[in-house]
Amino acid sequence: MKLFSSVAAATVLVALPSLGLAQEEASAVAGVDASTDTIFILNSLLFLIGGFLVFWMAAGFAMLEAGLVRSKNVTMQLTKNVALFSLAAIFYYLIGYNLMYPLGTWSVDGILSGVWGPGVLEAVGVARDGADDYGYASTGSDFFFQLMFCATTASIVSGTVAERIKLWPFLIFVVVLTAFIYPLQASWKWGGGFLDEMGFLDFAGSTVVHSVGGWAALTGALILGPRIGKYKDGRTIPMPGSNLSLATLGTFILWLGWFGFNGGSQLAMGTVGDVSDVSRIFANTNTAAAGGAISALILTQILYKKPDLTMILNGALAGLVSITAEPLTPSLGAATLIGMVGGAIVVFAVPLLDKLKIDDVVGAIPVHLLCGIFGTIAVVFTNGDANLGVQLYSILIVAIFTIVASGIVWFLLKMLMGIRVSEEDEITGLDMAEMGMEAYPEFSKG
Amino acid sequence: MKLFSSVAAATVLVALPSLGLAQEEASAVAGVDASTDTIFILNSLLFLIGGFLVFWMAAGFAMLEAGLVRSKNVTMQLTKNVALFSLAAIFYYLIGYNLMYPLGTWSVDGILSGVWGPGVLEAVGVARDGADDYGYASTGSDFFFQLMFCATTASIVSGTVAERIKLWPFLIFVVVLTAFIYPLQASWKWGGGFLDEMGFLDFAGSTVVHSVGGWAALTGALILGPRIGKYKDGRTIPMPGSNLSLATLGTFILWLGWFGFNGGSQLAMGTVGDVSDVSRIFANTNTAAAGGAISALILTQILYKKPDLTMILNGALAGLVSITAEPLTPSLGAATLIGMVGGAIVVFAVPLLDKLKIDDVVGAIPVHLLCGIFGTIAVVFTNGDANLGVQLYSILIVAIFTIVASGIVWFLLKMLMGIRVSEEDEITGLDMAEMGMEAYPEFSKG
Amino acid sequence: MKLFSSVAAATVLVALPSLGLAQEEASAVAGVDASTDTIFILNSLLFLIGGFLVFWMAAGFAMLEAGLVRSKNVTMQLTKNVALFSLAAIFYYLIGYNLMYPLGTWSVDGILSGVWGPGVLEAVGVARDGADDYGYASTGSDFFFQLMFCATTASIVSGTVAERIKLWPFLIFVVVLTAFIYPLQASWKWGGGFLDEMGFLDFAGSTVVHSVGGWAALTGALILGPRIGKYKDGRTIPMPGSNLSLATLGTFILWLGWFGFNGGSQLAMGTVGDVSDVSRIFANTNTAAAGGAISALILTQILYKKPDLTMILNGALAGLVSITAEPLTPSLGAATLIGMVGGAIVVFAVPLLDKLKIDDVVGAIPVHLLCGIFGTIAVVFTNGDANLGVQLYSILIVAIFTIVASGIVWFLLKMLMGIRVSEEDEITGLDMAEMGMEAYPEFSKG
Repeated sequence: MKLFSSVAAATVLVALPSLGLAQEEASAVAGVDASTDTIFILNSLLFLIGGFLVFWMAAGFAMLEAGLVRSKNVTMQLTKNVALFSLAAIFYYLIGYNLMYPLGTWSVDGILSGVWGPGVLEAVGVARDGADDYGYASTGSDFFFQLMFCATTASIVSGTVAERIKLWPFLIFVVVLTAFIYPLQASWKWGGGFLDEMGFLDFAGSTVVHSVGGWAALTGALILGPRIGKYKDGRTIPMPGSNLSLATLGTFILWLGWFGFNGGSQLAMGTVGDVSDVSRIFANTNTAAAGGAISALILTQILYKKPDLTMILNGALAGLVSITAEPLTPSLGAATLIGMVGGAIVVFAVPLLDKLKIDDVVGAIPVHLLCGIFGTIAVVFTNGDANLGVQLYSILIVAIFTIVASGIVWFLLKMLMGIRVSEEDEITGLDMAEMGMEAYPEFSKG
Repeated sequence: MKLFSSVAAATVLVALPSLGLAQEEASAVAGVDASTDTIFILNSLLFLIGGFLVFWMAAGFAMLEAGLVRSKNVTMQLTKNVALFSLAAIFYYLIGYNLMYPLGTWSVDGILSGVWGPGVLEAVGVARDGADDYGYASTGSDFFFQLMFCATTASIVSGTVAERIKLWPFLIFVVVLTAFIYPLQASWKWGGGFLDEMGFLDFAGSTVVHSVGGWAALTGALILGPRIGKYKDGRTIPMPGSNLSLATLGTFILWLGWFGFNGGSQLAMGTVGDVSDVSRIFANTNTAAAGGAISALILTQILYKKPDLTMILNGALAGLVSITAEPLTPSLGAATLIGMVGGAIVVFAVPLLDKLKIDDVVGAIPVHLLCGIFGTIAVVFTNGDANLGVQLYSILIVAIFTIVASGIVWFLLKMLMGIRVSEEDEITGLDMAEMGMEAYPEFSKG
Repeated sequence: MKLFSSVAAATVLVALPSLGLAQEEASAVAGVDASTDTIFILNSLLFLIGGFLVFWMAAGFAMLEAGLVRSKNVTMQLTKNVALFSLAAIFYYLIGYNLMYPLGTWSVDGILSGVWGPGVLEAVGVARDGADDYGYASTGSDFFFQLMFCATTASIVSGTVAERIKLWPFLIFVVVLTAFIYPLQASWKWGGGFLDEMGFLDFAGSTVVHSVGGWAALTGALILGPRIGKYKDGRTIPMPGSNLSLATLGTFILWLGWFGFNGGSQLAMGTVGDVSDVSRIFANTNTAAAGGAISALILTQILYKKPDLTMILNGALAGLVSITAEPLTPSLGAATLIGMVGGAIVVFAVPLLDKLKIDDVVGAIPVHLLCGIFGTIAVVFTNGDANLGVQLYSILIVAIFTIVASGIVWFLLKMLMGIRVSEEDEITGLDMAEMGMEAYPEFSKG
């Protein structure tokens, strides 16, 4: 993903992840490559296409989670997903964007160093020499794309804490996460901060997006506690999802959106090198997901004698998260293997979490946190520039920050307003108790 | 949206909404901007991407409506949605397209002035100097994009009149709407007709698409009357939707499609200015939807003490409709506010319509008609070229025309074949009565 | 679709289906058309957009099939769809891709003539003169796009053999289909093999993709036999799908994905001629689907007095398959008619198959096989280069090969491990019997 969200970024971008513009500038004289305007347009177009694909992931999370909760909590889960995306959109605009890429300061040091305020797009109908004034892509397309990553981080949290958290405390957490926690730590890498300067590599955000969502979810799950009846007499009571068609649809939506997530993180498409890299990323992203699904299929068949659809779906997502830190350098074979390891992590981690009585309704912690960590480490296998120590250090720093920040917010919310619904409401289901509206009012429950 | 669908249009387009081609032509000499071929290609690509995104809205309407009707009417509602899109595709091709952009006549005066007939695309494999011959984008991409707008107008109607209208009269109405009513009034603005000449501004169709669908729906609802049992002893009996997961999915689909709806209406992407404007539009469209959802969330919490998911979904759609008349000029903050007002309109208008015993099954009248009107007026807040009088006059003219034309068609259909199913069939549900096929045959009804 | 997947392909491509690059090269001197880099980028972009749209079709098949099977088999059907796509992704990479476009051999004669092995993408960040080295588009984008076609072929099979086939034999069949059967026959046309040399025309694969999937499905259905209770005392017992909302969603997804399927098969978008052709294809693809749906709507109304939603959905898909062999040359009117004939084929073929006691759960044989054949023949109506004899000969050759190859695999699987679940399991439903997991566990069955 990107360094700065600004004009000056063009020159910085030369370094990574694409071959960058300097090369182009040098060769522009030859007269056969794309004009600077065309490069600007194609880069912006990548952000727009990538952005709408990542937007679509919000629908994917909503369907996945609505399918994996019990029917008495579906309306609430849908409400949380629509609301969290909307709040992310507004608060990333109001605070987060300029906190992540401080306005006018190019020497970001990872600590808040610039002014910030509402995001501002370039003027309508910028003049034709705009390409020079506005950098390598339009601010609007960049903002649109970056926003979707912030919203994804929040989407990860909602699945884990489902079926027992109150609506409003959850939404307040989302506001803090998308306005402050996500943008601040993201600036350390993608804002050109100290992790970036150390050489931390996280192409599309296995750590910056997925592990952050995962840590926030884990902290929430620990502070909330498990659902009533989930762990009884040392056993884990299965609480199967109410609609596996929706969960499968959600997974396919996320898989589709991930082409934008990883492909768009190339940040440029205006040169032969960049579009070829975006193509590699599409192919690798797809095969990692496939590897994750097949790995979970085979492992559940072996371990439980029956393939487990929810594991297969989470396996595909695990493959996607695992390849996200480095979707460019692996060969197709390596990408498949990375995805397969991700799928295996999920199969083994889901029962482990239950052993620890950490109740993660949709499996977001194995998928986004554990595979986010694995994917970040796996960069060293295929990218010669990666340094294992730096990768581990960065994972740790982001972990500590997110756990502490999230923990404080969850605790404050718990103290000030309570975050968990009453026992009675939880048993009744949040839909009738908190919303007075069922998702499937006409179908009798078995 | 566009003026003429023709070559000559290129020069007309200079005026609005983009900076236009004249500028490009002037600067082409400089040699750094995109070549004319590249501009042609990128413009066409915008139409193709925009077009498939707006196509996707047809699925969004189908899911939204299938989720908001009762389960006994779901198969019928799905059938109507597939059929209406298909009929729109055929009749817009047979009649509508050339009625909207009369062949060979550039001095359209808003009244039918040209010959028309089936739409004709350019020849296969146009010669390389095609860019000069064929205008600023391919006819095929333009036709594809325009068609989707026509179909959207029809989709708006089906939700309002659901659960009681007969299939075939509804489909005949769709044919008239997409072949004549929509294209004729659309030509007044987007065909370069008298409203356009007066200076009416409606970027992507708050009035031309959404209010027209809304007026047609309102007229239909009035002539049809409410569903049996909806209003009883002065009270409104809630008839909750059967599947809120589907309704939420439908809303996310529409939200996604709207990037194509508004972004594609820039009509050009081949210059730095145009792609930057498209980017602004994407960002503004998204934030308006978010604003609408949050506004409905907060208002229903305050007014009813419980957030209402269907209101939140309609709030997001209301935000989208409200920003559609002018998604380019607002700042992100202004766009958010415009969306929030749209969401508020829905929250207050839904019960008001029920007071008036106007039975709008999915809330299409508040969303598409009222927010369409609001959005058209709101142009004056952010676009200095807008004239409030002209905006109001245009809203009024389009309203009168659509109400009269739709009213005549609905009345004729009522007289000639009846538009409402029998009382018995309505109580049984249209699925078994008219189709002999249930949507969820295996699930027992509560 | 394409000839070779290689650099040298650029020159071969001149012949068909687009005007090709030679023309471009000739005119590049004029200085107004897109630069070679821009052409390379836009071609690759077409593959990426087309690719992700065709990927989306995998979700479409999953939803269509999950909606059309009975609720006791939904989890299994979803599992098969996720797993088949994932296996296709891996085995097309491991074997299929280079079997289809043998590495380094340009004189393919339709019989395996080259070495093959895992697909290899171009290096990361290819140099700026990459356009010369890497042909007319990036290998990664080409691989990504081609893979999706291979996966589509497998998706077609799963619907027909649903509700009674065991998971693992089915998945082994998918491996053979995607690693060998599909790529081998596809190389005869798209690998530049003997069918291509004879002048066989199949633009996006009515024969190469759809009929191959259809033949494999038919062979499987014959060897498996019908579901228990489907044909009794000479009557066909209806077994209605459990969720028509999902089936409709699946159809809309497929319709959307088909713009990528057919449009992307133009293989190039970097010239005015190519993008105009892609535009024609989008418009024709859409109208053919609409024609198919309307034709099925009208015919079922006339024949059965009630419109049949599943027929209408299959009618739309039939229109899409029918236009796939030649989506470019027809006028909009001809495309609509071709689609309408497709829709009619489905309406008449579905009961005919039941007469023959061929149990095709979702109607994939009428849609993909019969309309695939019809579409391939229909090329002669609108494309002057088509030769009826060659079209028929090619259909026949592909049929014989696919039937024999599929038949052998199905028989081997039947002998070695059995392909059909036990009678008891079939009656219980595959979800509980094979997977131990219901798709809708909370909803009581009627």
